Amino acid sequence: MLTLFHHPMSAASRFIRLIFGEYGEEIALIEERPWARRKEFLSLNPAGSIPVLLAEGDVPIVGGTVISEYIDETRGVLKRERRLFADTSVERAEIRRLVDWYLGKTENEVTRHLVRERVYKPLMPAGEGGGSPDSAVIRTARSNLKQHLKYTNWLAGTRNWLAGDRITYADMAGAAALSTLDYLGEINWSEYPAAKDWYTRMKSRPAFRSVLADRVRGVSPVSHYADLDF
Amino acid sequence: MLTLFHHPMSAASRFIRLIFGEYGEEIALIEERPWARRKEFLSLNPAGSIPVLLAEGDVPIVGGTVISEYIDETRGVLKRERRLFADTSVERAEIRRLVDWYLGKTENEVTRHLVRERVYKPLMPAGEGGGSPDSAVIRTARSNLKQHLKYTNWLAGTRNWLAGDRITYADMAGAAALSTLDYLGEINWSEYPAAKDWYTRMKSRPAFRSVLADRVRGVSPVSHYADLDF
Repeated sequence: MLTLFHHPMSAASRFIRLIFGEYGEEIALIEERPWARRKEFLSLNPAGSIPVLLAEGDVPIVGGTVISEYIDETRGVLKRERRLFADTSVERAEIRRLVDWYLGKTENEVTRHLVRERVYKPLMPAGEGGGSPDSAVIRTARSNLKQHLKYTNWLAGTRNWLAGDRITYADMAGAAALSTLDYLGEINWSEYPAAKDWYTRMKSRPAFRSVLADRVRGVSPVSHYADLDF
Repeated sequence: MLTLFHHPMSAASRFIRLIFGEYGEEIALIEERPWARRKEFLSLNPAGSIPVLLAEGDVPIVGGTVISEYIDETRGVLKRERRLFADTSVERAEIRRLVDWYLGKTENEVTRHLVRERVYKPLMPAGEGGGSPDSAVIRTARSNLKQHLKYTNWLAGTRNWLAGDRITYADMAGAAALSTLDYLGEINWSEYPAAKDWYTRMKSRPAFRSVLADRVRGVSPVSHYADLDF
């Protein structure tokens, strides 16, 4: 069984857990506090970031996008119509663009700020950057989030799944980012009906169960978090 | 001929120009001011970011990493020993990790801050975020840069090329990021001899000529920028 170093509030980690879930492959999870810069962990990934997959032969594969490409090359290509990637280069580019959107753009403009201020900072020792949340940072991230939800609503309203007709990595990345923000009660779904419909379909997938069971110390999820009819 | 929307001070754009250069394929360049959010450009890439490649059939391929995967799938695989990627999934993961390092981590911790403060801000209208550089931001980015140079020095000192025995996308990404910072005179190469030796080899490659000829309005390059013996 492969091992994933992750954190429940890391969108890129959820992305990888969802992919393995869709492919029906169990993995061992080790929770890593990304701010702790643990020595043994830095020897696996000098960047200190999560997720890191210990793949076959305990080779560390580093980073959400990189791990997803590794999974596609070693597993996805064998899945035929259940593959979460596409066959043509142009379709693959569209899927990768959206993975990048949610795990790069949304992460940098919204997710990592809200997770850091609301989840990590209260858990971090003062000397490692802990302390009270910065309300200006939270305000900016919340304002940015609206654009990301509007865009998701547009994608979900014009396509069957986020990247087109079939469910792909784009849906896993979008649901990974938005489920992290939903845990924190940051999403007013009623304003984004097409996105809500898409997210309802994602939530009801068996692969999503483990994500809906996530809990972090000090922050309870919003009441509808694990509710399939929200 | 394919068209690339780029900016001379965008590391991800340089990455793509270097790859096409190595493969001997000429491309048309259109300079895009990334802060301008031009309507026609947003219709190609709603994120408004560069680079964007207009590929075969004028399909937009968005983002440095995404474009590099597209080039590998449509060209690289045919290049045999000149391919800038690897054949095995584990080697590919290591190359991707380093591309991510330079175009993700270095970009977010160093490059985009120094480029924004020192190049873009003086060119941007006040209403679009222009103004004087923020010296605290510059100080933090410069302090972060040291770690990235140390890491590059370590990689270059322990491997023939950054990802291993052969020249790969990792070298293109590293040289793209560091050449942007070198233009701005931010790198004291004498402190990083192994990195300097590697960068000297990169600079002397024919693909590098167009990057060394880059100029931006308002900021002259450091005197040794295009010098192969610096």
